Amino acid sequence: MGNNEKEFVKEITDMEKDFATWYTDVVLKTELVDYPPVRGCMVIRPYGYEIWENIQKELDRRFKETGHKNAYFPLLIPESLLNKEKDHVKGFAPEVAWVTQGGEEQLNERLCIRPTSETIICTMYSKWVKSWRDLPVLINQWANVVRWEKTTRPFLRTTEFLWQEGHTLHSSEDEARKETLKILKIYANFCEEFLAIPVISGQKTEKEKFAGAKETYTIEAMMHDGKALQTGTSHYFGDEFSKAFDIKFQNKEGKEEYCYETSWGVSTRMIGGIIMTHGDNRGLKLPPRIAPIQVIVIPIAMQKENVLSRAMDLAEFLKQNFRVEIDGREEYTPGYKFNYWEMKGVPIRLEIGPKDIENNQCVLVRRDTGDKEIVSLDGVGDQINQMLNDIHNTMLLRAFENRQSRTFTASNIEELKNIYDNKQGFVKAMWCGDRACEEKMKEDFGVTIRCIPFEQEKLGDKCVCCGRPANKMIYLGKQY
Amino acid sequence: MGNNEKEFVKEITDMEKDFATWYTDVVLKTELVDYPPVRGCMVIRPYGYEIWENIQKELDRRFKETGHKNAYFPLLIPESLLNKEKDHVKGFAPEVAWVTQGGEEQLNERLCIRPTSETIICTMYSKWVKSWRDLPVLINQWANVVRWEKTTRPFLRTTEFLWQEGHTLHSSEDEARKETLKILKIYANFCEEFLAIPVISGQKTEKEKFAGAKETYTIEAMMHDGKALQTGTSHYFGDEFSKAFDIKFQNKEGKEEYCYETSWGVSTRMIGGIIMTHGDNRGLKLPPRIAPIQVIVIPIAMQKENVLSRAMDLAEFLKQNFRVEIDGREEYTPGYKFNYWEMKGVPIRLEIGPKDIENNQCVLVRRDTGDKEIVSLDGVGDQINQMLNDIHNTMLLRAFENRQSRTFTASNIEELKNIYDNKQGFVKAMWCGDRACEEKMKEDFGVTIRCIPFEQEKLGDKCVCCGRPANKMIYLGKQY
Repeated sequence: MGNNEKEFVKEITDMEKDFATWYTDVVLKTELVDYPPVRGCMVIRPYGYEIWENIQKELDRRFKETGHKNAYFPLLIPESLLNKEKDHVKGFAPEVAWVTQGGEEQLNERLCIRPTSETIICTMYSKWVKSWRDLPVLINQWANVVRWEKTTRPFLRTTEFLWQEGHTLHSSEDEARKETLKILKIYANFCEEFLAIPVISGQKTEKEKFAGAKETYTIEAMMHDGKALQTGTSHYFGDEFSKAFDIKFQNKEGKEEYCYETSWGVSTRMIGGIIMTHGDNRGLKLPPRIAPIQVIVIPIAMQKENVLSRAMDLAEFLKQNFRVEIDGREEYTPGYKFNYWEMKGVPIRLEIGPKDIENNQCVLVRRDTGDKEIVSLDGVGDQINQMLNDIHNTMLLRAFENRQSRTFTASNIEELKNIYDNKQGFVKAMWCGDRACEEKMKEDFGVTIRCIPFEQEKLGDKCVCCGRPANKMIYLGKQY
Repeated sequence: MGNNEKEFVKEITDMEKDFATWYTDVVLKTELVDYPPVRGCMVIRPYGYEIWENIQKELDRRFKETGHKNAYFPLLIPESLLNKEKDHVKGFAPEVAWVTQGGEEQLNERLCIRPTSETIICTMYSKWVKSWRDLPVLINQWANVVRWEKTTRPFLRTTEFLWQEGHTLHSSEDEARKETLKILKIYANFCEEFLAIPVISGQKTEKEKFAGAKETYTIEAMMHDGKALQTGTSHYFGDEFSKAFDIKFQNKEGKEEYCYETSWGVSTRMIGGIIMTHGDNRGLKLPPRIAPIQVIVIPIAMQKENVLSRAMDLAEFLKQNFRVEIDGREEYTPGYKFNYWEMKGVPIRLEIGPKDIENNQCVLVRRDTGDKEIVSLDGVGDQINQMLNDIHNTMLLRAFENRQSRTFTASNIEELKNIYDNKQGFVKAMWCGDRACEEKMKEDFGVTIRCIPFEQEKLGDKCVCCGRPANKMIYLGKQY
């Protein structure tokens, strides 16, 4: 079995050498996903899907706590509906899948598989909303969507993916804007509190905003390799869609007005963010609050009397408060199991052998730091609880430090060139607001404006690109 | 407002006069669903979707408790995969939706939107399973599916619907058969314990079984009008799909064998079953354990001091243990609200007014019986808990009594004709097992064999249709 112990590390490409291959190795070998024989799609295997379930559970709780309810709208959208809002259709029509035949029947009008549901939802909202008493409408949907992507990677960009999309209606611009930002805040807090991913919140530029939105807000995370992942977006629509779809209400004064609208979403892409923020050359490193298994119990010297049964009792006991599994496989050595569960990213390994049982203790090993601790079985639940919290905080801090160490400042084009010739990361800079500069930087360095962050810093008063007066601080970065 | 109080009843068609229109009235007026401009589809509105969420939560718990895990497989299935199992494709190909274009690109091979996922899942299983150690595979998927139906009705038969589909692999026939029946039992218990719907468990005939299955098991419920609703099915596949998809494992002796397989599912159709089992001429009557709102608090004489605030405090207090809402709308009278929430099927109405507050009491009114009870505020939580359980039991009993009173016995074709000329309901009878008899009864009376129930009764020894020797007792009925 000696060979097996080295196998895992061997199987995963060194992340510093080839991050993209490291990523693919990790998602496949840890059985998060697999490739089906369907172009650009992914199968989310149980270990990956459980992460999604944990994300869903907590986000859903936060949405409901803030008054939102779930509903379900059709997968298929008639072409004529998609065409109703001109910017929206321009953005999405080139990348939708079309159903042209149903059963034996050739369809008169093609149906697209939803790439997002604004059009079908707005159609229903225009039937449902009549009076100010019907507002606000606060509806969310958990669903699959399809976008015909050219290059795909599991979780990050797939033809089909799972997401939630909230769609809300309000009687005033102010209320709709508040909703847009309230949700962005929920996303940001969730990322930090559950995924241990620090994010930068801000606004997208005109060029980068959602097709049909008036304003798009975003949370941007930095991956281990210094590239940016747009992790969630929240859009303010004004009354554009309401006008296109005729969503009107009678206000308190009896006058008809158009509704103000928002939409917002996060997707299975978040799982890609978790992998690329925290993972290392041994594999996954899962944040404890969404890890499918928080503690893996590994009995040592299992053949000895009582070891397995005591380990099982302990696992059962811990299951009352944590997500716990026991690895009682006879065909593998403890060493093999250590490597296996490290690769799978389980936050805590609990070892228990004959000596431990004798001394009423067990060994806890942290996945994030590798630190070992011998703890008494009497207070083991409290110890684990504390350790899981500490792992979360440590992971968040490390991700934050990585971002800090890879965030640079540039005040002119030479400095920008210098940075991106040698490094990967975020650049903070001033921008004049001109799209030409935005496009030039993309062309020259392959970077996009990730956002105009809410937390502005004054880094001078000249545009990093053209040198003209500038009063917006931006984050630049290469994107996934 | 006096007119409003009568409006609701007026709006719902009398169920004894026209059950189909009653059903449509109820699902639309109570805002469970709405019709989108997409052929045969439904929008599940928040009040309907919350029922589905409650169903999901409990079923998911029961699946996980029995060792199943969730995963997610692609929506789109290449035509060549669908064609791999001949009976399966014959059953499903005529009713699938076909994607022929992705983005700007005309596809070389059409993709169908999954009508069910056996084919794509089996393809993956053949990659994943190598050894007896990989078995059993116990995977479930919560997903949307599309079947191009000719006639559709919300929840009961729609082009797109939501469901769960379990797909399991086993090393032996015996284990796979046990799984098939274990799941059927979970479905049956869930229906009785959560939906207050009594079901008959049994086996489908060869004619009625799932396309590609070796055996199909079913739970059959009787609706208020005496017609049958197939509420869930569990299929035993033998090794047919394993052979078609090459799913083999090495057994403990090192020999290759094909896996034995099952699949099983329930869908949003269950919600149709709830409506048609329990509803009445005032609208919905929701079983307490899946009702989105279990208790609706209605303040009486709201304009009086403290009434609204006391009612709100009480609602908040009760929310710790129950799903509770308060109707504090100023524009409606209590009478209007009583009717409104009765129509919505909320199990308990809690009235509280100035006199009640003075006497430290409130009034509880049951939706199922209309019974009123004055209870002290001191023990109101316990009272509600007990009343909800009692409502559940009473609803289950009534549904059972309805089924009993509409279940008849026939020993020959004249008796059968006599029953179906005059009545709607289940008929218990003996059957020779011949498909010709099954088809004749369908043609003559529009009834199908709902199942060969596990609980067999000896009702003679002659086939109800042809008079030849018969040893199988069957349930006949008209189906939704």
